[in-house]
Amino acid sequence: MNTWRIEQFGKKPKLNKAVFIEGLPGIGNVGKVVVDFIVDELKAEKLYEITSNTFPHSVFVNEENLVELPKIEMFYKKLNGYDLLLMGGDVQPIDEVSSYEFSEKVLDLIEKFGAQEIITLGGIGLAEIPKKPKIYCTGNSKEIIEKYKGKMVHNKLYGVVGPIVGISGLLLGLASKRKIDAIALLAETYGHPMYLGVKGAREVLKVLNDKLKLGVNVNKLEKEIDYIEKQIVKKTKELSNVSGKGLKKGNEFSYIG
Amino acid sequence: MNTWRIEQFGKKPKLNKAVFIEGLPGIGNVGKVVVDFIVDELKAEKLYEITSNTFPHSVFVNEENLVELPKIEMFYKKLNGYDLLLMGGDVQPIDEVSSYEFSEKVLDLIEKFGAQEIITLGGIGLAEIPKKPKIYCTGNSKEIIEKYKGKMVHNKLYGVVGPIVGISGLLLGLASKRKIDAIALLAETYGHPMYLGVKGAREVLKVLNDKLKLGVNVNKLEKEIDYIEKQIVKKTKELSNVSGKGLKKGNEFSYIG
Amino acid sequence: MNTWRIEQFGKKPKLNKAVFIEGLPGIGNVGKVVVDFIVDELKAEKLYEITSNTFPHSVFVNEENLVELPKIEMFYKKLNGYDLLLMGGDVQPIDEVSSYEFSEKVLDLIEKFGAQEIITLGGIGLAEIPKKPKIYCTGNSKEIIEKYKGKMVHNKLYGVVGPIVGISGLLLGLASKRKIDAIALLAETYGHPMYLGVKGAREVLKVLNDKLKLGVNVNKLEKEIDYIEKQIVKKTKELSNVSGKGLKKGNEFSYIG
Amino acid sequence: MNTWRIEQFGKKPKLNKAVFIEGLPGIGNVGKVVVDFIVDELKAEKLYEITSNTFPHSVFVNEENLVELPKIEMFYKKLNGYDLLLMGGDVQPIDEVSSYEFSEKVLDLIEKFGAQEIITLGGIGLAEIPKKPKIYCTGNSKEIIEKYKGKMVHNKLYGVVGPIVGISGLLLGLASKRKIDAIALLAETYGHPMYLGVKGAREVLKVLNDKLKLGVNVNKLEKEIDYIEKQIVKKTKELSNVSGKGLKKGNEFSYIG
Repeated sequence: MNTWRIEQFGKKPKLNKAVFIEGLPGIGNVGKVVVDFIVDELKAEKLYEITSNTFPHSVFVNEENLVELPKIEMFYKKLNGYDLLLMGGDVQPIDEVSSYEFSEKVLDLIEKFGAQEIITLGGIGLAEIPKKPKIYCTGNSKEIIEKYKGKMVHNKLYGVVGPIVGISGLLLGLASKRKIDAIALLAETYGHPMYLGVKGAREVLKVLNDKLKLGVNVNKLEKEIDYIEKQIVKKTKELSNVSGKGLKKGNEFSYIG
Repeated sequence: MNTWRIEQFGKKPKLNKAVFIEGLPGIGNVGKVVVDFIVDELKAEKLYEITSNTFPHSVFVNEENLVELPKIEMFYKKLNGYDLLLMGGDVQPIDEVSSYEFSEKVLDLIEKFGAQEIITLGGIGLAEIPKKPKIYCTGNSKEIIEKYKGKMVHNKLYGVVGPIVGISGLLLGLASKRKIDAIALLAETYGHPMYLGVKGAREVLKVLNDKLKLGVNVNKLEKEIDYIEKQIVKKTKELSNVSGKGLKKGNEFSYIG
Repeated sequence: MNTWRIEQFGKKPKLNKAVFIEGLPGIGNVGKVVVDFIVDELKAEKLYEITSNTFPHSVFVNEENLVELPKIEMFYKKLNGYDLLLMGGDVQPIDEVSSYEFSEKVLDLIEKFGAQEIITLGGIGLAEIPKKPKIYCTGNSKEIIEKYKGKMVHNKLYGVVGPIVGISGLLLGLASKRKIDAIALLAETYGHPMYLGVKGAREVLKVLNDKLKLGVNVNKLEKEIDYIEKQIVKKTKELSNVSGKGLKKGNEFSYIG
Repeated sequence: MNTWRIEQFGKKPKLNKAVFIEGLPGIGNVGKVVVDFIVDELKAEKLYEITSNTFPHSVFVNEENLVELPKIEMFYKKLNGYDLLLMGGDVQPIDEVSSYEFSEKVLDLIEKFGAQEIITLGGIGLAEIPKKPKIYCTGNSKEIIEKYKGKMVHNKLYGVVGPIVGISGLLLGLASKRKIDAIALLAETYGHPMYLGVKGAREVLKVLNDKLKLGVNVNKLEKEIDYIEKQIVKKTKELSNVSGKGLKKGNEFSYIG
């Protein structure tokens, strides 16, 4: 049976007009880059750590040479006029059943905080690196699309993209059954597994800054990109190596059994 | 654990001598084309919407740029002398366990309406486009086969076809344990994944018109085919693209993570 | 969740010193050929029909043009000095969990009849057709091996074969935890998926005739082989076709969705 | 549903400052070689035998021509100043859910004995046979790494290896949630599926001898290697043959159905 372990950190805060932003690993890791950056910049506080027996059955070795289970984290930040809930992590559930289960768990959690809006982030994988990535949106209500669409955000996704796969898509569809407005902001990026969609992430950040008055310094993203790349690409590469079990030459290491 | 969410629309009707027709996506989408067309033509009313964590973990973007979870729908229509239950949808369960579970859920539902007959629709995939597709039948009782076979419907399937895979087959076998008569009407069609078996669907419609006095205008099917194609082929293509994760050239979009 | 439906036919008999023989589809279908033949020859009575949502999600079309769910059947036959329980069928569970679950269900059933001995049948797949197939045995106690080994049955399997995969193996291992003596009789056969190991089956029948005084006419096996082949190879071929979804030329049919 | 059967042998002992060492099959079978050798040398007593419906659905034929279910075993040995719990076996769980489930079961078991330290053993697969295999460690606390690192054990794993996959990794991560100190000792070895990492195992044994005062004769390992190889490589080879279903030439046997 799939199990979901949700560990709480600190006291459960009271949130006001909570907006929930999800950014898990995916195409170009656009969502993850954005959420990790916002968490850092706003010094958001950790609220939940989610582990599951559906996540990879492995541990990472971190910079301090200590092991870490793969996990998904939720953070919060109190702001002026509204509060923020943020979700990032090392993985996203892979198969159908665990993706639905996880999405429902997340909706249960944020519903308790009275979340009024859900924003999921993702990438649209192009065959070439886009020079100036466009942002598209779709959602589960006309109202939320109306709120976010504009010069920076295109809303004509129908017919040009296929289904939105994974948590970023499911959260929209399932939130609709709970009458929570939800929107996906999708940035064009290069569809290569190892490509980090920083430019797309930047455009998404600009939209969030504009609409949510986040006040994060978008320019800083590019400066921190070296560190981010080290963190994200490494784990992603490692996770895909595991299944590949590729052996390397000489003294380089690979799969550990 | 697999979950099945059945949402009811409107009041539960009382049905008289209900006949249940199933047409889910499959070879040539013959069943789906037929059921979608009947629902439209008879203006059947929506009764249930079924979603499940075994369905694809993704959402479609519809014409209004809003997201939709993949779903299976049931409709009803009161007619003279008997009433009709119809089932169509975006997907059918894929693995063994969820196919059996889904079929039993459907039988539970229609048994409550006192359904007396089950008709499942499907395609027989040929290696070439058939000029005049033949209709074959098989069932779970000699009586129901006797009722439907005739000049338009062949009943010598044994030895020429293999097992009937999926919901169209399972419903027959499982209905038999509940003493409900069930028949499958299978139209020859071209076995290519992207081919829409409209000609086969037409032949099936003729049979249903003849036997059930549906009174739908078969000729209209071909006129509406452009719209149907747009609806069905698009979703099917998208769903298969997801697993393929194929990247396209230039500005065309593909997989969204 | 995996479900197992066990339907009983007729009254549950009282059995005396029951011996249970299992012969499900497998390499060369040796076990299935033997059990189907004994059931026919001894006119054994049907006791249980087992269906499961772990079996293929499809139905067969039989000679009467009626559909049948894939199933496993148990029969019994009262004999002089001891009684016989026999198990044959269309399929065997495929994955680990359902194979264990099924084996435990079977042991539950036969334990209620006080079964004192279990004989599982199988084939050892060689790369060439053996001229005179040898029979090997292994078991879960020295006593039962002592009883069956001899001129006709070799007992030096260690080191020459790998693990015994599937129900024929699991029943031995799991019976051991219930203190029921169990032996596997394995006949050499050709390891090709479409090969029917009739010669191997004949050698197994000779052993059973000798040890259990079955009194079946072994020579008749070859005469009935045409009929058996039609029955068994057809279903097996169909089941493997389903996954292959192979399309054939011209007017031949294939996958039905 | 996954089930775990834990059979107890003899009376449950009272253990003092228990240290738990895990060595299941994996890269180079380093962990398994070490644990099997210690169990033999110290004449550790068998405590638990664990079988599961997630293990391969097959049985091995042993030297006495009797069948054995695939199993994982736990042993204990009372020593001076502390006691030892040891775990070895034929297999390790393969998929995510059963790996997590198994690890939690193991932690439940050893927690009842008040285990204070967990040592998991594994191999780091290199592309070439290492002349003098190095030992690396990682763990879930700085204290335990401090205790084991030194001239013989390197602790700079970060950045050179990917995630630690399987039970050896998961036990560390999950023990951390139970506040049990846990360390992994990983020996360089050749990453070929059929290679037996005896040299790596020797280095691990030296470390355990040094830190835990085991007092086992490391030199004996190489003398016993023929026997060990026969035992371990055979079963591993067999298990991988099963999935491959490879047929061999002439009179050699293969897959048994």
